[in-house]
Amino acid sequence: MAEPAPTLAAGPAGAAGSVGTVETQYLELPEPVRLDCGRELHPVRVAYETYGALSPRRDNVILVCHALSGDAHAAGFAKAPPEESTRDGFAAEDRDGVTGKGLGWWDGMIGPGKAFDTDRFFVVSTNLLGGCRGTTGPSSTDPATGRPYGPDFPVITVADMVRTERAFLDALGIERLAAAAGGSLGGMQAFEWAILFPDQVDAVVAIASTHALHPQGVAWNSIARDAIMRDPAWQGGHYYGTGRAPDAGMGVARMVGHVTYLSAQALHDKFGRRLQFADDIRYTITEPEFEVESYLRHQADSFVRRFDANTYLQMSRALTYFDLARQYGGGSLARALDGVRARTLLIAFSSDWLYPPSASGEIEEALRALGKPAELHVIEAPYGHDCFLLEEARQTPIIRQFLSKHSLAEAGASGSYGMTSRKRPS
Amino acid sequence: MAEPAPTLAAGPAGAAGSVGTVETQYLELPEPVRLDCGRELHPVRVAYETYGALSPRRDNVILVCHALSGDAHAAGFAKAPPEESTRDGFAAEDRDGVTGKGLGWWDGMIGPGKAFDTDRFFVVSTNLLGGCRGTTGPSSTDPATGRPYGPDFPVITVADMVRTERAFLDALGIERLAAAAGGSLGGMQAFEWAILFPDQVDAVVAIASTHALHPQGVAWNSIARDAIMRDPAWQGGHYYGTGRAPDAGMGVARMVGHVTYLSAQALHDKFGRRLQFADDIRYTITEPEFEVESYLRHQADSFVRRFDANTYLQMSRALTYFDLARQYGGGSLARALDGVRARTLLIAFSSDWLYPPSASGEIEEALRALGKPAELHVIEAPYGHDCFLLEEARQTPIIRQFLSKHSLAEAGASGSYGMTSRKRPS
Repeated sequence: MAEPAPTLAAGPAGAAGSVGTVETQYLELPEPVRLDCGRELHPVRVAYETYGALSPRRDNVILVCHALSGDAHAAGFAKAPPEESTRDGFAAEDRDGVTGKGLGWWDGMIGPGKAFDTDRFFVVSTNLLGGCRGTTGPSSTDPATGRPYGPDFPVITVADMVRTERAFLDALGIERLAAAAGGSLGGMQAFEWAILFPDQVDAVVAIASTHALHPQGVAWNSIARDAIMRDPAWQGGHYYGTGRAPDAGMGVARMVGHVTYLSAQALHDKFGRRLQFADDIRYTITEPEFEVESYLRHQADSFVRRFDANTYLQMSRALTYFDLARQYGGGSLARALDGVRARTLLIAFSSDWLYPPSASGEIEEALRALGKPAELHVIEAPYGHDCFLLEEARQTPIIRQFLSKHSLAEAGASGSYGMTSRKRPS
Repeated sequence: MAEPAPTLAAGPAGAAGSVGTVETQYLELPEPVRLDCGRELHPVRVAYETYGALSPRRDNVILVCHALSGDAHAAGFAKAPPEESTRDGFAAEDRDGVTGKGLGWWDGMIGPGKAFDTDRFFVVSTNLLGGCRGTTGPSSTDPATGRPYGPDFPVITVADMVRTERAFLDALGIERLAAAAGGSLGGMQAFEWAILFPDQVDAVVAIASTHALHPQGVAWNSIARDAIMRDPAWQGGHYYGTGRAPDAGMGVARMVGHVTYLSAQALHDKFGRRLQFADDIRYTITEPEFEVESYLRHQADSFVRRFDANTYLQMSRALTYFDLARQYGGGSLARALDGVRARTLLIAFSSDWLYPPSASGEIEEALRALGKPAELHVIEAPYGHDCFLLEEARQTPIIRQFLSKHSLAEAGASGSYGMTSRKRPS
């Protein structure tokens, strides 16, 4: 594949607060990736974007990890976006008037003067292993057959994603991270980084995340995957090139996910029980009667146009497997976290019932009991799990302060950072 | 149709606390039922059971109304049950060791000495209009075509169900109800009775119910219906006789419903994150890895064997339409309840997030503001909406006391009741 060589600087500066126009780039890893399941994957291509400039010491790197349906395009405006942007949740698309088209999924958090300040940090974002937005995944060609992997793609874990990110950064010549950061599944990756590579991560920023999804979350994900796999158009996963795809099941999966990303209060505030036709009901089962019904169908329809079902299955499975205590602690979260050397910032949202604050509290408690630096901020906000994409203004000062302390500590040790603090509207 | 004539007494007495063995009976209504949608339905057959004995004055009748997936077999042992029992929730099937096979869905609540005491009351239970367990519904034969109605069955409302129950009781020669009682959709019918027929209902017992499903509940129901209708085997509703049925979509609908009937805590307590194979994960997407995943699939499989998809769509639509303020109050719940003459008992469960206690609180508040007798009991219990089927022991004294007060008042007026109070283990 003819791919552009990696560049280590961001594109041209955009408007104040924006990283400007960016183009997703691609890198093929030189070595196979070894997976938890025992298999090896090769070749592995990684789609990525970078924002800001790498410091001469290469010590200002923040890896931003995306959630289930995200991609490498985390910030700025996509240069000729081939598809819709991948922001989760309604806010990104209609709550605050942002269309989301072409804008990175965490644009409010990444840029000059923003939470992840590209005037100081070199922010790297990749599409996850198993993805469908440029990184090798089930829709990629299996070299053994010349056809898409489909269901023969190995079942990946969050650790596999992180090993891929590690190999990718090696290829960029980046040895350590000033921070690994992300929300939801992205936060899981940040924890995994701190455990798998404790000497290579200075800080973890885990937002609306957990050490292990609670059983109800496991149930919702199971239902979503079943909805896809029960769709006859899924064809056991071999739907590529057949002219059919499990759009019906994917739509159901997305609707289930969507409701879990919001709070009951958010749905109440946004839609209430308003009817499509204000005067009265129409006595129809097949057509939407309530605005919320129409909204969910719209969410389903737009999602299936941009996301691959087999990737959805992989991401959903990986985040249900993720369980730090089981993986690294023989059932004990404290034991699992014992080797962590990074400072940890946890942010949770009061109305997030999919990744509730209690899970972040358990992590904070375990880290503190081990004498490790950790801080938890629970933000009172009504929008549920999607808050991590919506409540940018309230997360920003928390993250900036956390990373600033970090920089100060690093500066004391290495002198690589200036002391000036910048303030820009975010 | 050759149907047995209605009998007004229960079958032979069973063991203490049980109504014994019962057989579902059938009655064809003499007149067409007029529906909210403007259509009329004829013929309408009603499947029903009765427990206890009708008093000479015919003033001891309690109508028990079932929820989404229930049937007429509310108590006792079914005589040669043709299909599985229809209890919702896991408890009925495995939590408390009851197999549920042949036992009525509310057997713990109906019988001698139980909450609805068949030594004193004549308890009547019918399968709802639109049902698939004996009462006319989408799988019944449309006289206009000689084939099953399927999607041409009129879209019914809770009020239509109640008008059918009214016509059915007329046919039995029963004019008034000592109480209309039910949980969930059953509670909605009880409210509807009190509004549509205020002079014919002495008391309402509404458990885990609401005056209008909240928007998140509307969303869950919309997703469940979409899962069915997106299944190609649904065939636009014309699946009868084709050898195919939307089992895949119905299974997803049931799994969504099932999780909403439980609480996150209940799933945690029952399953945690236990794996199917305790030693480790198997790296599989298609097979269950967690016990909760296997459990949900089991629930889906057993449900599709006993329930009709088109009936599910009808019941789900009816309970989302139900909205007392919209239907009867021009948007005002108080105005809607203004004509109620029945005393009202409301029971809600602290962990019920589908029919939360706040909704019952709104009803109580509106009734009290109107000077009408109403009492609300919120039971602290961890099992979610399914508590109305599980927490029988804690509901029993509340309901018995409420109905006892009722009887005393009636006795003072009419002298038709004895004063002895009976106590039996429930």
